[in-house]
Formats: sequence, C-alpha cells, structure tokens
Amino acid sequence: MRPKKTSSSKTPAADTSQEGWRAGKDLLTIKSLEIRDIELIMGSAATFHEVSGRAIKTVPALRGRTIANLFIEPSTRTRISFELAAKRLSADVVNLSGASSSIVKGESLVDTARALESMGVDLVVIRHSAAGAAHSLARAINAAVVNAGDGAHEHPTQALLDLFTIRAHGKKLDGLRVVMIGDISRSRVARSNIHLLTKFNANVCVVGPPTMIPPHIEQLGVSVSHHLEPALKDAQVVMILRVQHEREQRSLYPSIQEYARWYGVTKERLALAASDVLVLHPGPMNRGVEISTEVADGLSSVILDQVANGIAIRMAVLYLLTVKQ
Amino acid sequence: MRPKKTSSSKTPAADTSQEGWRAGKDLLTIKSLEIRDIELIMGSAATFHEVSGRAIKTVPALRGRTIANLFIEPSTRTRISFELAAKRLSADVVNLSGASSSIVKGESLVDTARALESMGVDLVVIRHSAAGAAHSLARAINAAVVNAGDGAHEHPTQALLDLFTIRAHGKKLDGLRVVMIGDISRSRVARSNIHLLTKFNANVCVVGPPTMIPPHIEQLGVSVSHHLEPALKDAQVVMILRVQHEREQRSLYPSIQEYARWYGVTKERLALAASDVLVLHPGPMNRGVEISTEVADGLSSVILDQVANGIAIRMAVLYLLTVKQ
Amino acid sequence: MRPKKTSSSKTPAADTSQEGWRAGKDLLTIKSLEIRDIELIMGSAATFHEVSGRAIKTVPALRGRTIANLFIEPSTRTRISFELAAKRLSADVVNLSGASSSIVKGESLVDTARALESMGVDLVVIRHSAAGAAHSLARAINAAVVNAGDGAHEHPTQALLDLFTIRAHGKKLDGLRVVMIGDISRSRVARSNIHLLTKFNANVCVVGPPTMIPPHIEQLGVSVSHHLEPALKDAQVVMILRVQHEREQRSLYPSIQEYARWYGVTKERLALAASDVLVLHPGPMNRGVEISTEVADGLSSVILDQVANGIAIRMAVLYLLTVKQ
Repeated sequence: MRPKKTSSSKTPAADTSQEGWRAGKDLLTIKSLEIRDIELIMGSAATFHEVSGRAIKTVPALRGRTIANLFIEPSTRTRISFELAAKRLSADVVNLSGASSSIVKGESLVDTARALESMGVDLVVIRHSAAGAAHSLARAINAAVVNAGDGAHEHPTQALLDLFTIRAHGKKLDGLRVVMIGDISRSRVARSNIHLLTKFNANVCVVGPPTMIPPHIEQLGVSVSHHLEPALKDAQVVMILRVQHEREQRSLYPSIQEYARWYGVTKERLALAASDVLVLHPGPMNRGVEISTEVADGLSSVILDQVANGIAIRMAVLYLLTVKQ
Repeated sequence: MRPKKTSSSKTPAADTSQEGWRAGKDLLTIKSLEIRDIELIMGSAATFHEVSGRAIKTVPALRGRTIANLFIEPSTRTRISFELAAKRLSADVVNLSGASSSIVKGESLVDTARALESMGVDLVVIRHSAAGAAHSLARAINAAVVNAGDGAHEHPTQALLDLFTIRAHGKKLDGLRVVMIGDISRSRVARSNIHLLTKFNANVCVVGPPTMIPPHIEQLGVSVSHHLEPALKDAQVVMILRVQHEREQRSLYPSIQEYARWYGVTKERLALAASDVLVLHPGPMNRGVEISTEVADGLSSVILDQVANGIAIRMAVLYLLTVKQ
Repeated sequence: MRPKKTSSSKTPAADTSQEGWRAGKDLLTIKSLEIRDIELIMGSAATFHEVSGRAIKTVPALRGRTIANLFIEPSTRTRISFELAAKRLSADVVNLSGASSSIVKGESLVDTARALESMGVDLVVIRHSAAGAAHSLARAINAAVVNAGDGAHEHPTQALLDLFTIRAHGKKLDGLRVVMIGDISRSRVARSNIHLLTKFNANVCVVGPPTMIPPHIEQLGVSVSHHLEPALKDAQVVMILRVQHEREQRSLYPSIQEYARWYGVTKERLALAASDVLVLHPGPMNRGVEISTEVADGLSSVILDQVANGIAIRMAVLYLLTVKQ
C-alpha cells in the first residue's frame, strides 16, 4: 500500500516511497556500497530471517526466475547457502562447477555468462579465484551478478551476514571494538569486512604476523597489531579468519603449530576480551589451529548464527537484485 | 480425523490413535527398530507406492522442508533414489558429494552437519565409508539423520525395500526360507537384511566362501553354508549380493571367474529353488559374475521392483522423520 | 475437442484432428524424422519461446513428471539447457554425470536406464561418446529417450534449434545457400544439420580440409569445397563448427594456427557472403580459431539467439515426448 500524500514533506512515510535498491544491477563489492543500500539488505534479510524460523520456509517471491551458481573455484558451503536461499524464494537454480564444467573449457568466462543470460538466467552468482572476475562478468551481461568471492578481493555477502549477526546480538557498530585475526593480506573476508565495519565507524584492529598484514593497511582506517593478547583486551567482537592450507601460504609462517601458538584463539586468551564478546568465524574451521574447540563451541561463539544469517542475507540480495524495484 | 471413543477397547480403530513414529528422530539401523515402526514405514510406503503409479507423482507433503544428501562415499543410484523421493514429496533438496565437497576439507563431519542444520536443513541423508558415521552425525544435530549406508555396518532403507518387495509378492515372512549369497562380512545390505528378516522369524541361510562369512554369525539367528547348491534347495527368496571390485576384496577369492563358478546364480542352479522363488539384488549387478543374465532378466527376478519400491520406502522414511508425528 | 466433420475435405480445421506427435516415443535422429513432426516441434517451440520472454518463465505443463539428464560424456552447456527447459516446464530433474556416476560402474548402460525407468523417470536425456548409445537405451526401456549427442552420429536438438533460428530471422529453407565449415567427419552437429537442411531442400556446401570431409558425403545431397573463400560467396547462412582440441584430432591438420589461417571465418571473408548472411556456431566458441571475435560479436551473428532458442526447442521436445498425445 502506498503511503497517503500529505502536505508536509517532512513526514517520514513520504520517504518510504523513495526506498528501493539504488546500487545498480550487481553486488560486487562492499567498498562501492552506500549505507542506505546496506540498510535495505539488512531490513529485507530481517524479514527473510523470520521466514527461516518457520517449518515451511519457502516463499513464492522469485517463482519462475532463474539463478545460476557459477562456482569456478569450488566452495560447497557457500554454494549450498546460495542454492538454498534461491530455492526458499522458489527460484529455479542451476549449478555449474569449474571441475565438471566443459562450458568454460576453451571459451571465455564472458562467453559462458552470455550463454547463461541467453538461456534466461536472471542472476549469476560467481565464485572465482581471480580478483575482478565478477566485475568482468557484470560488465558483459545485463543480468544481475553477485560476487561470491573473487580471489583475495571481496566477498560481500560474507561481510553483510557478519554485520547482521553482530547487530542481531545487540551491538551498535559505532565505536565497536573489533579484532580481526589471520591472513589479512589474502583474505577477501577481511577486505569486505574492513570496508563494511569502517563505513559504520567501528574501531577495527587487524592482527597477524607481519607476512600476513598488507603494507599501508592503516589507510583503510584500521589499526595493526602483531601480538594477539594485547589486541584482544576489551575486544567486543573477535573475527577469526580461516587458515588456508594451500601450499603457497606455508611460507608465511613456519608451521601450522607455530601459527596456532601465536595467533590461535583459546579460552584463556578470549578471557582478555569484554565479557560479552562475540566470536565470529566464516567457516569451515580448523579446530585447534586458528580457534580452539572450547572457543568454537563456547558461549561467546555466534558461528552457527552466521551460517543461519547467511541464508537470510542471500535471500535478501537475490530478491533485491532479481525483482527490479 | 481421530476415531471416536467407543466402550469396547477391542475396536481396532481405537489403536489408530496411538500410531505414529516412535523410533526417535533418526533412522540409523534396522537392529534398533521395533516391529511397530517397521510396519508404520511399510504402511506409509504402500500409500506412496500408489502415488508413484500415477502420471503426476508429486505430493505436497514436505513443501518448504529441506533435505540434504551428504554422500561422502559416492553412490549415484542411492543418491538419485533419495533425491527423487524428496522431490516427489515437494521438498527442497541439496546434494553434497565427497569428491566436490570443500565443506568437508579441513573440518569435521560434525561441523559440516551443524552448518547444514543452521541453514535450516530438516533431514540429512548420509552415505559414508566409515561404520558409525551416521550415528556421530545424529548425536551432533537435532535435525533428522537417515543412514544411507555406513561402511560395512548397516543400510536400513535397502533392507526395508527388500521386505516391502518380498511382501508385495505375497510372501509371509514367518518361516520363509531366504538364502543370502556373497560377501556377508563386508556387506551392510546383508547385515541390515539379517536383522530385519530374523525379526520377522524368517529362516535365513547365508552362503559364501569361508573368507566372506564372519565368525559367530550364527548368533544373529542365521545358518551358514559354504556350498551354494544344497543351500538353494527349496529356497523361497534368493538375495544375491553385489561382488565388489575394490582391491582389498580380491584376496578373498582367487578371481572373479572362480567366484562366479562357485557362487554365481545361474538358471540351472536356480531350478533347485522353489518354483515361485523370488530373486533380489540390490544393484548395480555384475552380470555373469554373481548373477547370470538369464536369472537377472528371468521371471523370478524382482530386481526392478526393488528399485521402484526403493522410492516408496524412502518417501515414507523422509516423510515420517521430517513431519514429526 | 475434435473438430466436427465437414463435407469439404479442404477445410483446414479437418487436418487439425490428425495433428500430434507421430515419430514414436523417442527423439534419436533427424534422419528418421518426418517433416510433419519437425513442424510440430517448431510450432510448439514458438509457443514456449514466447513464454521465455516473460519475467515468470515457468509453466506447469510437466508438473509431477521426472526427467533424467544422463551425461556420460560431459557437456555443461547442453546439460544446463535441458535442465532449464525441464524446470521451466515444472518437471523434476535429476542429473547423472559420467565422472561421478557409480551407477555406470560395473553395470551396463541399459541396466542404468532400466533402474531410472523403475524409479519413475518419464524421459531420459542421454549424451554419450559412442554412436548408437541413445538407440540402445531407447530399445531397452519404455520411457522416452532424447539423444543429446552420441559420438559423431547425431545431435538432433542442435539441428532443430538451428532451423528455428534460421527461420526466426526470416529465411526460407527452400534453395537457401548454407555453408558449413569444419570437421564434417566427426561432427554430429554437421550430420544432424545436413539431414535437416536437405529435407527442406536447402543448398548445403560443406567446407574443410580433405581429412575432415567424409568420402561420398555428396550422397547426402550436399556439395563439397576445400576452399573457404569461393564457398562463402553469396552464402546466406554460415554454420561454423567448433574445433575440437582433443588429441586424436590434431593429426587432421598441422596446427590450430594453420586451421585458423585456412578455415577461420573473419570479417574480411564474411564480406564475400550475402549482405544479410546469418552466422551460426553451436558453442562453445574458440575465438580466433574457427571464428574471429569481430564475426562472433558482429551484426550477422545469431549465436546467442541459438542459445535462447535451444531452451524453447528442448521445452517443445520434452513436452511432446512426455505428455503422450
């Protein structure tokens, strides 16, 4: 129902009629997103989160629309989250993986995307090992594109679900003391979260060995520490990044055991933080490496809430980008 | 509709009000299942089997519910059967395979299952090469778990569909002469079927070379033979197990040809059985090894009935465990 | 409703009563298809193409029916096209791939198909590297079978979508000058298109090095040229085949660069054709090899139309074969 027109232009209801997604046809980065669009996603996700609590979780919002999951870099967890989000909206979903995908052999990613668009795909979710892959796709097609992680660049829906989770636990972002621990240089989760948290004036400290902290990161509005324990003092949110086991990263620290000894978050270390601290991890966890089992399963952990909220955030993003406002 | 209360406690309708699934939230083993719950599955499967005969096979029973197929050990046939059962019930289904699954790399199976549960998955179907994997999962989550085969332990829906098939062909279980042929030691199909058939007082004889019969198996209430032909005499049901081609099994018999010569079921050997004998095989068959083509395609074969009944049994199990009674 | 019988046999409505699919339960080849059935597919595809233009693209035509995509030879593009066609018709779809398919290990393709049929699958789409695989399947089961490419034999839906595309751009087939360029010997796309175009009296010239043109191909009613440029003169349709990178084909020409120099379609060469020439390619393209980027993205290219029309053609085929007329 449209709000009635009133004589006063200051009526808040009058602004409602101007709401709607204004950030363009795609969701590629947090960096380029304005706060009003972020809040639109948060509001929409809150509605869908309520639906997720019901026994019957499906809504007909995207019936007859088609979403393609193009996971050139494999990620079962993120793929399943997007697939379930799409199915709960009653969209048709097709999955294309890099491993099994002859569509990408001998043809460019752009030709693949144009073919999907010609098949009537309304929105392409892309995960790719190369930074910028989602942007190339978005420029090539008129269909909407959601970046589900491009190299070490961005992973916007992860940051959005982290924000949703922090707020759902009653935290205000302004001045919030957030500690982010791990390989900041190579983490798209870190990059997207730094952009998002600083937009809301959170007080972010990134922690890791010097080999894992990019030079000049302070220019993004964060502080840096190479020592975990002093950084954890009075922290209100602790974001733990996943240690990658891939070969190229091994040279960044002597061994996994060594990393765990210096940067693993244990119950003892977490006691330095605020008593109502929240512990976040994007998953999958390496228990006993970057996070101890006591912390992962402890009262401060909101890690499973993140997973649940991921569905709501992705429903919101798929909905806002597919049903043009 | 609840039956009206009557003065006589002997009214059969009065018992109806006490029906409903009582075996807990999961289906992990046949061993732990009581006859009343088995009969509940059989009754529900009969209803769904009728639906499967229609041109339009879908019912809205699980609309808005979510089922995850977690096949860490691959099995296309069983995965497709569960997937179709779920889709015929209008559930949303997601498939996770071991090969493509980054969700299981570097994280425990339990963390994977908890993530699925947090995404709103109502029921997890798991196939795993390790005995007990389904139990670990079931203990870790509140969502329902169906064991679709765990190592050499159990494969309950296979035994249930075998029972359904035997009964659908007019056989009474009490005193039924069943011969089971193959690698009894390593077969979860054999183990689940032995538990199920002996609960109903069938007369089960297991047949195979000594290397394939576990010691003390008589304690499960079955007899043992190492010679096929005498065992087949007057048999009413012949259950043939699939010969596994995996390397570790080769040492159990000199060669596949040797196995076929001693334990392959041929038309000539089957003539020793009762004239109305039923031949079952869980599939996929190795024609010319454990079963001849004449037997596989012969009048006694109910092998394709088993496949069809598998859908009905799995619809019943998914329905009973998802819609809490 | 059947039309009333009238005294005049010339009444067009009288013919309507004889409409309906008459080509049997399967779609295996173009060669065996009669023009009336081809026109039935074209008419049905035109209807579904109109549906594909809507925001909500799903119709309930095959609700409760089941379609299996059995891709023993991988092809993401064709699989996705069939999968989307089935989903737009509201059918349930299951995907089986050769790579992940334990269903095909140690059992014959026919046993796999019979199992699918027993599970209530109404139609099997099969892609296989062996010519004749679709026929074997079709003989073994009562369910419908659609050949999605069998070795170097046929790929009927590709030819049908090419015909649909040519007509949609206003061309009449009778006398149409079509040039087909590439490895005619090993291309199922070429074979199906030659059968289809010659049925409608198009004037087809196949072009390629002698190693790629099968002997006696003239018997199919086409002319042959080993030189691209004279063949292109006044061409109205240019069908470019994909160069296969598989090893066994390398010996057919010295190198990909050499192939591109002699048979690659460039803007300059295309200028020899009619001014309203249409350029078709079944995809995925090797840009810079058999087709230049300028031609691929040029005004004459209808390559993305082919992809879009593929959905409509497959919807028509799935519909006509599943809902028996």
